[in-house]
Amino acid sequence: MSKILVIHGPNLDLLGKREPNIYGEYTIDAINELLKEAADSAGAEIEFYQSNHEGDIVDKIGSASHSGILINPAAYTHTSVAIRDALSAKKIPLVEVHLSNIYGREEFRHKSLIAPVVTGQISGFGKDSYVLGLKALLDMIDGQKNG
Amino acid sequence: MSKILVIHGPNLDLLGKREPNIYGEYTIDAINELLKEAADSAGAEIEFYQSNHEGDIVDKIGSASHSGILINPAAYTHTSVAIRDALSAKKIPLVEVHLSNIYGREEFRHKSLIAPVVTGQISGFGKDSYVLGLKALLDMIDGQKNG
Amino acid sequence: MSKILVIHGPNLDLLGKREPNIYGEYTIDAINELLKEAADSAGAEIEFYQSNHEGDIVDKIGSASHSGILINPAAYTHTSVAIRDALSAKKIPLVEVHLSNIYGREEFRHKSLIAPVVTGQISGFGKDSYVLGLKALLDMIDGQKNG
Amino acid sequence: MSKILVIHGPNLDLLGKREPNIYGEYTIDAINELLKEAADSAGAEIEFYQSNHEGDIVDKIGSASHSGILINPAAYTHTSVAIRDALSAKKIPLVEVHLSNIYGREEFRHKSLIAPVVTGQISGFGKDSYVLGLKALLDMIDGQKNG
Amino acid sequence: MSKILVIHGPNLDLLGKREPNIYGEYTIDAINELLKEAADSAGAEIEFYQSNHEGDIVDKIGSASHSGILINPAAYTHTSVAIRDALSAKKIPLVEVHLSNIYGREEFRHKSLIAPVVTGQISGFGKDSYVLGLKALLDMIDGQKNG
Amino acid sequence: MSKILVIHGPNLDLLGKREPNIYGEYTIDAINELLKEAADSAGAEIEFYQSNHEGDIVDKIGSASHSGILINPAAYTHTSVAIRDALSAKKIPLVEVHLSNIYGREEFRHKSLIAPVVTGQISGFGKDSYVLGLKALLDMIDGQKNG
Amino acid sequence: MSKILVIHGPNLDLLGKREPNIYGEYTIDAINELLKEAADSAGAEIEFYQSNHEGDIVDKIGSASHSGILINPAAYTHTSVAIRDALSAKKIPLVEVHLSNIYGREEFRHKSLIAPVVTGQISGFGKDSYVLGLKALLDMIDGQKNG
Amino acid sequence: MSKILVIHGPNLDLLGKREPNIYGEYTIDAINELLKEAADSAGAEIEFYQSNHEGDIVDKIGSASHSGILINPAAYTHTSVAIRDALSAKKIPLVEVHLSNIYGREEFRHKSLIAPVVTGQISGFGKDSYVLGLKALLDMIDGQKNG
Amino acid sequence: MSKILVIHGPNLDLLGKREPNIYGEYTIDAINELLKEAADSAGAEIEFYQSNHEGDIVDKIGSASHSGILINPAAYTHTSVAIRDALSAKKIPLVEVHLSNIYGREEFRHKSLIAPVVTGQISGFGKDSYVLGLKALLDMIDGQKNG
Amino acid sequence: MSKILVIHGPNLDLLGKREPNIYGEYTIDAINELLKEAADSAGAEIEFYQSNHEGDIVDKIGSASHSGILINPAAYTHTSVAIRDALSAKKIPLVEVHLSNIYGREEFRHKSLIAPVVTGQISGFGKDSYVLGLKALLDMIDGQKNG
Amino acid sequence: MSKILVIHGPNLDLLGKREPNIYGEYTIDAINELLKEAADSAGAEIEFYQSNHEGDIVDKIGSASHSGILINPAAYTHTSVAIRDALSAKKIPLVEVHLSNIYGREEFRHKSLIAPVVTGQISGFGKDSYVLGLKALLDMIDGQKNG
Amino acid sequence: MSKILVIHGPNLDLLGKREPNIYGEYTIDAINELLKEAADSAGAEIEFYQSNHEGDIVDKIGSASHSGILINPAAYTHTSVAIRDALSAKKIPLVEVHLSNIYGREEFRHKSLIAPVVTGQISGFGKDSYVLGLKALLDMIDGQKNG
Repeated sequence: MSKILVIHGPNLDLLGKREPNIYGEYTIDAINELLKEAADSAGAEIEFYQSNHEGDIVDKIGSASHSGILINPAAYTHTSVAIRDALSAKKIPLVEVHLSNIYGREEFRHKSLIAPVVTGQISGFGKDSYVLGLKALLDMIDGQKNG
Repeated sequence: MSKILVIHGPNLDLLGKREPNIYGEYTIDAINELLKEAADSAGAEIEFYQSNHEGDIVDKIGSASHSGILINPAAYTHTSVAIRDALSAKKIPLVEVHLSNIYGREEFRHKSLIAPVVTGQISGFGKDSYVLGLKALLDMIDGQKNG
Repeated sequence: MSKILVIHGPNLDLLGKREPNIYGEYTIDAINELLKEAADSAGAEIEFYQSNHEGDIVDKIGSASHSGILINPAAYTHTSVAIRDALSAKKIPLVEVHLSNIYGREEFRHKSLIAPVVTGQISGFGKDSYVLGLKALLDMIDGQKNG
Repeated sequence: MSKILVIHGPNLDLLGKREPNIYGEYTIDAINELLKEAADSAGAEIEFYQSNHEGDIVDKIGSASHSGILINPAAYTHTSVAIRDALSAKKIPLVEVHLSNIYGREEFRHKSLIAPVVTGQISGFGKDSYVLGLKALLDMIDGQKNG
Repeated sequence: MSKILVIHGPNLDLLGKREPNIYGEYTIDAINELLKEAADSAGAEIEFYQSNHEGDIVDKIGSASHSGILINPAAYTHTSVAIRDALSAKKIPLVEVHLSNIYGREEFRHKSLIAPVVTGQISGFGKDSYVLGLKALLDMIDGQKNG
Repeated sequence: MSKILVIHGPNLDLLGKREPNIYGEYTIDAINELLKEAADSAGAEIEFYQSNHEGDIVDKIGSASHSGILINPAAYTHTSVAIRDALSAKKIPLVEVHLSNIYGREEFRHKSLIAPVVTGQISGFGKDSYVLGLKALLDMIDGQKNG
Repeated sequence: MSKILVIHGPNLDLLGKREPNIYGEYTIDAINELLKEAADSAGAEIEFYQSNHEGDIVDKIGSASHSGILINPAAYTHTSVAIRDALSAKKIPLVEVHLSNIYGREEFRHKSLIAPVVTGQISGFGKDSYVLGLKALLDMIDGQKNG
Repeated sequence: MSKILVIHGPNLDLLGKREPNIYGEYTIDAINELLKEAADSAGAEIEFYQSNHEGDIVDKIGSASHSGILINPAAYTHTSVAIRDALSAKKIPLVEVHLSNIYGREEFRHKSLIAPVVTGQISGFGKDSYVLGLKALLDMIDGQKNG
Repeated sequence: MSKILVIHGPNLDLLGKREPNIYGEYTIDAINELLKEAADSAGAEIEFYQSNHEGDIVDKIGSASHSGILINPAAYTHTSVAIRDALSAKKIPLVEVHLSNIYGREEFRHKSLIAPVVTGQISGFGKDSYVLGLKALLDMIDGQKNG
Repeated sequence: MSKILVIHGPNLDLLGKREPNIYGEYTIDAINELLKEAADSAGAEIEFYQSNHEGDIVDKIGSASHSGILINPAAYTHTSVAIRDALSAKKIPLVEVHLSNIYGREEFRHKSLIAPVVTGQISGFGKDSYVLGLKALLDMIDGQKNG
Repeated sequence: MSKILVIHGPNLDLLGKREPNIYGEYTIDAINELLKEAADSAGAEIEFYQSNHEGDIVDKIGSASHSGILINPAAYTHTSVAIRDALSAKKIPLVEVHLSNIYGREEFRHKSLIAPVVTGQISGFGKDSYVLGLKALLDMIDGQKNG
Repeated sequence: MSKILVIHGPNLDLLGKREPNIYGEYTIDAINELLKEAADSAGAEIEFYQSNHEGDIVDKIGSASHSGILINPAAYTHTSVAIRDALSAKKIPLVEVHLSNIYGREEFRHKSLIAPVVTGQISGFGKDSYVLGLKALLDMIDGQKNG
């Protein structure tokens, strides 16, 4: 049975409460619920994790024994070599998602330190970035099992 | 009824024939078939277009009267202000997809001129980048109709 | 008798239909009409050409046997060495025009590959950029004939 | 009644003990005392927080329900997009202070990721940067109440 | 009745006397005469001002109560934030002109600090840059009156 | 008795008249009055100087025999090595102030040539930047006298 | 029997007619004749293709079934990722030639997007760049056959 | 008696488990054992500390009362000004070590924020980087005691 | 008879009074006296001019009718295109001098906008930079007369 | 009779012995033999020179009295202004060759200091780069004699 | 029996005589003696070589038949592609050492052209950089023999 | 008695024979004669040295026991850290001269690695750069003796 780890990066605990014009009005719980449903109907287990701490996220990734990771690194996308290194060491499918289109925002958000080490990246679809990302992740895991 | 335009950029006519280690082994026809099925089951119309010509793609976008565009600009991702301007003038949902993870390849492929003007971007999932992109596009169009 | 070639670059066929806050509400036909009147009253012939294709514009310039060229390269302003080379080989007066003030827009629009090889550049006056450009062109041609 | 949050960034717990030629000889407690007095005499409540952890500071800002924040981000000034995002989401007056003149030090300290999202910045006056910053913050809060 | 201010920047008092291969052989008086005629025939008032002093030009712009400004900032084009700020505060049509094609000269002349804050820019037509610029300015002022 | 010199840079004579959304609605006279009161109550003399001329400001600084200088270099902040050199030669406390948060504006305003040679910098508090700056200046002068 | 494809990029149809000081006085037909003779005497077939259209060149490369390609990408050398990608997918010897020494011209001509994906590059020998390039190509093809 | 603090940065807890082609097959415990032996035979005390948290490492350095520090900052080498500042405030010998040759890896790993504030740096010798670093550290401490 | 113009740029009126460790202890009058003696003994006339105003220096150069100019542009060395243009229009020998070695100071002082348009440059010899510069200037003028 | 000088730069004495995957398996003697034969059959004299010393190569070029130079500057391609200056002073045909395609290797090898001063450049054809280069050189020399 | 080559780059012949505050007071002979002792006690042969000539060092490396090389490239660290290429071709352990911490000195010394091709690098420990480097080298050679 | 060392860098042995439009028509012998006369009349000894070898120049500087050095580093100006380090270690007056105005030539010649470590620099006066440089050097040596 597939086991997915979902990681929400810094400030995402406040989703739906801050700058809704950029990030939409869904809370993190609402998003997790959507993902839970999707995982359930795909017969997959899913675990949620949120932290504002770069080190916690590195710890979490390091100790994870899942089939795949769905991560929205948020601000750490642009500054964390530690998270990049942690992800890069996992030999499982990895999907990076962003609520907003990071390429349409400030210059410094155009560069992702994470993107070169994940399998794929999805950005700009609000909560649906997560849902699409989970679908992509599950498909890849299935592909590996069957392929 | 939703009407989707799928645009395949330069060299994609040869998909499945060149560099399968980077682009996968699916041909463009196989991908179109997958998309056709997905569109059918969602009750949407879908039109396919491939060209190696920047100008043709600009023409096509300019004259399009669809509900949304799914585009893999391929090499023009990094060089075409004309396609960017053409897309930017459309007031419909736009999704940019890439077969490979462009952020894991040569430096000059990390910069997309197209990304800032589309709604969202999906890269790195091979043929599934298209399938996920179509799903995202249809969801957005539905959201607009219902929202 | 002076013979002027007017070249409209990519996406200008849709003028007056897209982003009127940037490009104004005049259509390309309306602008051509204004130019036709001005040419007539100056006793000059005028030919109009629009294309979204870089190669077509290069072809057109290469085969032109006019007294001067008035060109709005639009998106190709920033990306086309081929159009630059084509213009640079003509030994006639050349005027580059832009509807909007390109220096007040995105950073990548501040750099014109065309500007170094034309006689002069006019930008920011909407449809009047063309009218002023035609006047400048005719004056230069007259100056050459008389000077 | 106004409620101020004072945040001291990394290494500031050692203030007065390290490199006094750059940072002065006041300890963090001495500075807090000065601020406490100033707040008292202005009839404002004040809370102090110091952490060497980027994530803790993000947590603290995210959960804060104060009227204004006075922050010396220290080393995180130049590296933390997460703290920037946390501050940027607060709709209250925000003041950034620095003990030393960061523009007179190493090149990499000249760039503040925080400055673009705060109301104002004060640097170079040692402990007085804090005192002036508190005064500025209280004035803004008063201005909002009365204006 | 429209009132136009024409500002000639540094070294333009010597026009026609220095480097005629770059700047042409017209003196500043000759140019002013051309402009006077054009203004007269358009029924507009016109005032001329030349200075080699950045501060004087800032003063002049600050105290101007004209309907539009035609400025050749010459060397200050590339170095003066003060003139940019002065112009940017005027809520009237502003036209920047250059005798030579600044984009065909040294690299450092390709960047105009002034261009982003004016309505439009004309360069490369010698004395005619001024005449075209005046025409553009008067048309805009008329447009405002009538539009 | 302390003697303070206040220098207002280019375009500040028009304060309160231009772009109030950026610079606030206070005139330069109103600000000077505020500063006069603050100086009076601190028992200090104060002199005001405004100029749009870089050279005048250099002259003024060079001939000044005050106990401290409060300067808003405005546009010259980003372009004047001459003012930097003039300030750098004074061996008295120097405070740089800005009405707006220069780090939240155009890229070229993020770099201050002045900042590395002053004691401290205050920006973003409107007229209060001046008031806080004067306070900081007087405190430093007092500190020198007493310390 | 070896089959060579010769591709002439944009503006090369006008060779011998434009800027002979840079490109020499040979026409494209004269060059093709030289190449034809050389191919004949080496017992190889040769096909010539010229286009000003990036897309046409991509089409041509994509559909080519030759033993080797000799290409002068001209202006597209510096701007076309699409031609680079098309060439990069061919698993045959590829030679890039330039009439002029591109490293002795404008800065932007020093960078070739094509060079990293071809076997070798020859520039600066006028028409002889082509002749030498053909020789190199035939030698490589022979080497493959015999090696 | 000398007291050494050894700090292992982020992801090093997984040493020997991830990417052995880059980092070697030694675990962190094996390395610590080697260091313990070396310290013992040199008659020095040694303490080991590993954390994935930037803030924890800053805390640890701030509160350390050792004779010298041996640090492998791992990913924080390239991103942590906070650790740099913490180290810079210690007035004891400091040695930075890296398992792999950071100059032979990705461009962003060539720049160390830590290197300018330590005494020396050793990289590229796998586990032996640590052993050599400890030796260097002990020699320096001895040098200080005897010199 | 040769007529030399000596121009001292901004802040040089205070020479010998500020930062003697950088600029030496000679006053501007003392330097002028040295130059006067040297000019006298060479049978040349000499005129001295100092200003802190960029515009004044441009005026002075524009109206000068001397045989050669010796200029220490001081701070304007690095910022004034206007002085560069003024000098560039003179067809007489021009020598740029600096008291200190500008290449041994801050990065921004390494770039001279003036150097490309003068005949030669002398820097680093204190007052002797002027004396050597005058000698060089007189030699060139003599060379022109005799050659 | 034509006299050719062939210069082999640093490390080429070891050709065929180091990194054959990059440089091929031919030794320098084998290449010289090939060149000797080609020169003989063209009735030209040929001299070979190899040195690892930049200064020796400058000496050799300075004292050469040949009809043309064929040079593989190897590592000095990217670092030697001295060899560039030495070549630039010769008024004879000059050809730069490289065994490998330098544009397909590390970034710092893409820039040739030599290329702008030679007649033409050939790279990527292994030993054949030399043979083609010699042919090009002899053709140019013949062209000069006959043209 | 292991045979080590020690290479001292330019200016190191004067060690202990120049700038002792940067390079320490040990002479090159003293360092060689230390290394000799260490090599003796490890039962290894050792050869010393110093040259100020880039070419000599390339020669030496090219002709070396040692088990490992210990090199302090000094100034050539930052400028010599030739030494890099020479080292890169050796298939033996290579260690780069520096007396001073090159990362704490001028910006241009932070970049080593040599580092990417050696096994490891040690800097900042004065003469001990060499001793540690020799130890590292011998350990690697032993490791190869025994591993 | 003062003893001066004059060093001529690479290619200067050919002075007067190559590119006289840039370097003038004087040979190196003629320049040395001029310098000899000037030294004689100043009662100083003078030694001349020319080499095309970076290493030789480093050797020469390292072993020199003169009172001052006059150096024209020619091409090594822009590339030699080794010569910079050699000069930087001498505690005697050092003057850098250039025949041509290096700031009026190619961009890469504007940067001198040598300038930051010499006392002063003179460029642009042809042979007179040397004569002025010698004079400056002797004056400095005299100043040291008498001061």
